[in-house]
Amino acid sequence: MSDFEPRDADYERRVRESFARQRAMETFGARLLRVAPGEVEIGLDFDEAFTQQHGYLHAGLVTAIVDTACGYAALSLTEPGAEVLSVEFKLNLLSPAAGEHFVARARVVRAGRNITVCAGDFYVLKNGGEKVVATMLATMMKVLKQ
Amino acid sequence: MSDFEPRDADYERRVRESFARQRAMETFGARLLRVAPGEVEIGLDFDEAFTQQHGYLHAGLVTAIVDTACGYAALSLTEPGAEVLSVEFKLNLLSPAAGEHFVARARVVRAGRNITVCAGDFYVLKNGGEKVVATMLATMMKVLKQ
Amino acid sequence: MSDFEPRDADYERRVRESFARQRAMETFGARLLRVAPGEVEIGLDFDEAFTQQHGYLHAGLVTAIVDTACGYAALSLTEPGAEVLSVEFKLNLLSPAAGEHFVARARVVRAGRNITVCAGDFYVLKNGGEKVVATMLATMMKVLKQ
Amino acid sequence: MSDFEPRDADYERRVRESFARQRAMETFGARLLRVAPGEVEIGLDFDEAFTQQHGYLHAGLVTAIVDTACGYAALSLTEPGAEVLSVEFKLNLLSPAAGEHFVARARVVRAGRNITVCAGDFYVLKNGGEKVVATMLATMMKVLKQ
Repeated sequence: MSDFEPRDADYERRVRESFARQRAMETFGARLLRVAPGEVEIGLDFDEAFTQQHGYLHAGLVTAIVDTACGYAALSLTEPGAEVLSVEFKLNLLSPAAGEHFVARARVVRAGRNITVCAGDFYVLKNGGEKVVATMLATMMKVLKQ
Repeated sequence: MSDFEPRDADYERRVRESFARQRAMETFGARLLRVAPGEVEIGLDFDEAFTQQHGYLHAGLVTAIVDTACGYAALSLTEPGAEVLSVEFKLNLLSPAAGEHFVARARVVRAGRNITVCAGDFYVLKNGGEKVVATMLATMMKVLKQ
Repeated sequence: MSDFEPRDADYERRVRESFARQRAMETFGARLLRVAPGEVEIGLDFDEAFTQQHGYLHAGLVTAIVDTACGYAALSLTEPGAEVLSVEFKLNLLSPAAGEHFVARARVVRAGRNITVCAGDFYVLKNGGEKVVATMLATMMKVLKQ
Repeated sequence: MSDFEPRDADYERRVRESFARQRAMETFGARLLRVAPGEVEIGLDFDEAFTQQHGYLHAGLVTAIVDTACGYAALSLTEPGAEVLSVEFKLNLLSPAAGEHFVARARVVRAGRNITVCAGDFYVLKNGGEKVVATMLATMMKVLKQ
């Protein structure tokens, strides 16, 4: 259940089409699991090709997934034709990205006219539970296509 | 020329060996260009496999490279046997990562006993010049291997 | 109700004594409202002496209160004798700090051996409800007194 | 010497008038030392009334001064009638704000149409030299008055 009202009834299609155009998401094997007004969930599996020196997922990959989830959480609340750009993000790394399956969950904290602030978390799935790996606070900007 | 004195004469070898163990850097095609005390430079070429929905390099890839450069800038000033973990980073995206060739440059802002703060920038190389794409401020923590 | 177990039964006294030593909190008129394991709440009233050019509370004052709440949320989980320093924080400003009464709420996101990550929010109290003014993600470091 | 061209010849007067309207700056005893296109410098003296529990200047006060310097660095490059709001900032605390005299220096990193990114540092003046206390990376948004 989301606290937000979408301004475009077709928001999920717009998010899914944009996600499908991201070659990086395909390369990383990321899957868009859930799209709700102001909320997005992305799944990812471990891939040795994207590890850092200790064999865990690289922080850049964690960032890619959480930033993407934050961006689409923001996009889900925009009017038709709008796009969203990342202005900046901050990521705190809380525990190693060690495991087989991961999920990122992002939600809009506040949607302004031009600026939307989102929070996102990256979890490793373990023994039927979840453990938080990283947490992001991000600033997104709405851009209207010309 | 660097402002810092290394505490380990063998700092460059330690940085290069750790970089070589990062499978993600190999997958991204990143190259460790320069290692000096408190300063590291990494080169990267455009690869369509890592693009976002507008065809530019994904912010997560930019993050991966600048975070790695920041981490090794910090590592270059540590004593033998020490490792460095990213505690957190903040990245501002200044212009699209559009181009063929990129370089990240990171430098230590302050090296403390446990915490080292680094700044890094990501540039696109164009017409013999450079244009800044993103800027990072990052916090690294020294960890002594058991 | 807090998710954390305190390591020092006397945690609240330590937090309150440290808060009482902060001359800035006294000058700002800040009040320590609530201390629970991993959670702290601070109240503040509007004071024209600390306004910015539009007559709202200055972002630096908002930062002072939320950073302090985050620091004490971290301190509440430490062992006797430990202190906590702010390593860094990021604050997103979501709406003007316009109103008469404010409250900051901070909670520990993850408490590590040396590093504790906290999140904090600053609200204005209005018509029996609350509106979020700013949100912080902060990194704290434990220091053991010599 | 600044790298930026002002869009308003009268930029310094606009910055100084806005600074003069900040009651918080007056209360803190902050002085606007220098205004150049894209660059601003603010001076501050130690005041026990704004200290934290160890007797150093509170991080919130450091933030207030550096954020203000960043905001006016951004404002100095805007057209007549524009104002600037802080969207967010991140501050790394590098050493205690211990000393009698301080200076904050901010500069524009990149001025976009709506978003301007600034960097700022806070120094303590000691024995004829300076020591960095904190460093900020901040996002500012231009707002046109109605």
